[in-house]
Amino acid sequence: MSAVRNKLLVLNAGSSSLKYKLFQLGENSALKAVASGVCERIGDPAASFHRGKAGGGGEQKQEAPLPNHTAALEVVSKFLGDSFRGDFTEEVFGVGHRVVHGREISEPVLITDKVRATIEKAADLAPLHNPPNLMGIDAAKSTFASAPHVAVFDTAFHQTMPPEAFMYALPYELYVERAIRRYGFHGTSYKYLTQQAARMLGKPESETNLVICHLGAGSSMCAVKNGRSVDTTMGLTPLEGLMMGTRCGDIDPAIIPYLASHGMGMKEVDTLLNKKSGFLGLAGNADLRNHLEARFGPGSATADERSKLAVDVYVRRVRKYLGAYFMHLDGQVDAIVFSAGIGENSAPMRREFVRGMEFAGVKMDDAENARAAGGVQADVSAAGSKVKLLVIPTDEELSIAQQTLQVIREEKGTAAAA
Amino acid sequence: MSAVRNKLLVLNAGSSSLKYKLFQLGENSALKAVASGVCERIGDPAASFHRGKAGGGGEQKQEAPLPNHTAALEVVSKFLGDSFRGDFTEEVFGVGHRVVHGREISEPVLITDKVRATIEKAADLAPLHNPPNLMGIDAAKSTFASAPHVAVFDTAFHQTMPPEAFMYALPYELYVERAIRRYGFHGTSYKYLTQQAARMLGKPESETNLVICHLGAGSSMCAVKNGRSVDTTMGLTPLEGLMMGTRCGDIDPAIIPYLASHGMGMKEVDTLLNKKSGFLGLAGNADLRNHLEARFGPGSATADERSKLAVDVYVRRVRKYLGAYFMHLDGQVDAIVFSAGIGENSAPMRREFVRGMEFAGVKMDDAENARAAGGVQADVSAAGSKVKLLVIPTDEELSIAQQTLQVIREEKGTAAAA
Repeated sequence: MSAVRNKLLVLNAGSSSLKYKLFQLGENSALKAVASGVCERIGDPAASFHRGKAGGGGEQKQEAPLPNHTAALEVVSKFLGDSFRGDFTEEVFGVGHRVVHGREISEPVLITDKVRATIEKAADLAPLHNPPNLMGIDAAKSTFASAPHVAVFDTAFHQTMPPEAFMYALPYELYVERAIRRYGFHGTSYKYLTQQAARMLGKPESETNLVICHLGAGSSMCAVKNGRSVDTTMGLTPLEGLMMGTRCGDIDPAIIPYLASHGMGMKEVDTLLNKKSGFLGLAGNADLRNHLEARFGPGSATADERSKLAVDVYVRRVRKYLGAYFMHLDGQVDAIVFSAGIGENSAPMRREFVRGMEFAGVKMDDAENARAAGGVQADVSAAGSKVKLLVIPTDEELSIAQQTLQVIREEKGTAAAA
Repeated sequence: MSAVRNKLLVLNAGSSSLKYKLFQLGENSALKAVASGVCERIGDPAASFHRGKAGGGGEQKQEAPLPNHTAALEVVSKFLGDSFRGDFTEEVFGVGHRVVHGREISEPVLITDKVRATIEKAADLAPLHNPPNLMGIDAAKSTFASAPHVAVFDTAFHQTMPPEAFMYALPYELYVERAIRRYGFHGTSYKYLTQQAARMLGKPESETNLVICHLGAGSSMCAVKNGRSVDTTMGLTPLEGLMMGTRCGDIDPAIIPYLASHGMGMKEVDTLLNKKSGFLGLAGNADLRNHLEARFGPGSATADERSKLAVDVYVRRVRKYLGAYFMHLDGQVDAIVFSAGIGENSAPMRREFVRGMEFAGVKMDDAENARAAGGVQADVSAAGSKVKLLVIPTDEELSIAQQTLQVIREEKGTAAAA
């Protein structure tokens, strides 16, 4: 009996981790998640493999020797093969890879040698992300040799930004010669959320204007005009813009030469800005739940002042960009969308983000807002609010799967899923 | 005949320049500018002295040996003495000094030894500005030995910002140990413009909410709530925020380690960001008039694309902060104020800044806007605009003179001007 080629694998490879999610293609091109998991500490003696069915339940962890990404993928593949029986690798008709930086590539693409070279070249701009992404690609190409592999770039959705949004006011040569410009990230999330928001609003994507807040340990925002990104807070790298778990976001760039002139090396500065700042830097740890409790919980009056300060700095940054993006959309905003850890789960934060926005046509329904949490879509705007307030759980893996499917179909007609 | 001590001198000392403006105290504490000028290229064989009566007319330039700030001040003093006859230095009852960085000092102060030490200490944060400011102070203290000297800080007006506005999301220790925070600049300009705007609006300053745009070769913006600064675009140094003549303003801070990893030294980076960016970097020169002509003039269709891009990037940054500051003021804005070179003189730029702001209650009268230029106050908002649009020429020297006078009176009662 020949294998049914109806499965699509989505991979997200980090420097020492490999996340996967397996989708099964059903009728009407529906993609259903059937398994997911993660290999952690690859290359470390304490490497481990967590696996479970998609959507939680039955999660298991096992220690496993995982010297590299290829070994990790073999463990994953064997486990999935055992679960689904048969020759699992033959059932996979395509693999979608999350790739962080794609320079000026604006669409998901089949990974040819030329595309692989582009990803390698972009590693210069994303040294922490693109090299492990490539390790994942290389490992998967050897394990799933007969399937097409597709790269879905975090940067792609933002390639519609106008030049006045993506150009820094730096010497023009830095753009021409070194590709220094704003790229933006979280693109697969924004693409998915735009799709979902348009559906909730009952409008075509191409007529939908949004300000989307993807607020988690990594936080960014995006202004969407007629379904396309016209601005975003992250820049050349995922450091710029909002405050994050351990990243500083916007600072006076002159702070860096200042620190250097006081004896700090560039590597140390880089670590400081990316890994020791944000909530961790201001409040001493990156445990967001703890800081939100301090700021909004019953013990707030006597809670740690630095926790409260960190939350207030975070809120002010989000408000800064809410205002900025309302301007870039001339106030013609159909909805503000909240997603990711904070956006989906913290009602008090959502309340603070939009406080006093009546002048721009934004009114929140506090009761609906308080109820919205736990992974379901919700409209938390008050009746009569010109601008809707939508809470939408993001699903980057599903978005990658959808985009991968589309690329494969365009390349092969409908043969793949026959 | 003893000298009439009725003159107040305002000094602004740069690294190789010394600007002065002389005010005469009249009835009702009115300060009338009676002379002004500038010494340039101090320390250079080509040093020169331009002088004239305040308000233009009769300007003259002469080459003069000016080995240092003391020599420059002596030339100025001799010239003013000849102009006003008598022992000029005895007529000066006070000297007001512009000082760029005052750390967390919130008021103008008499320059005691302790204050001088603070200015010296702050040189660490403003290495290009505070040391020459001190040279000016030291020179003036020897030339005008019997007069009180007052320091008026560019940073002072912004000391009312709340912590969530002035704190960067960096390790908290950098604030405590190194005083790294947002300070903001152009404070004397904002103070003056707030005063003038309140007068034009017929409201007490303490009830006036403004977004002020000080847009010149150095550009910044300020959100004013109840007469006090609650946010501003410049930060630890005057580099952050808007794009400027040669400064980059906001960038992804990760660009700096990136440039360093490609072999650029920190001094070179500093020069790049401060002196080779902005209009100069994007469009090849910092001649703003030229770029505005390219963007808005009759030959725009065939004009230089980089000129037009630079103008568009500049406009977008101003709009970004207009939106952000409307948020920080919950949309309760009495007026947007435009000042300095671009703000006072470019009607097409003012038009672009507020385009599409009807959603926030802003409507411009295009005819009034086109007429407003040339150093006079104007209200260019349309009838019925909830938010007024005010064009107000700034006058930092007058503001310094007023603040200096106030400090002297508080210190001495009214004896000084007797």
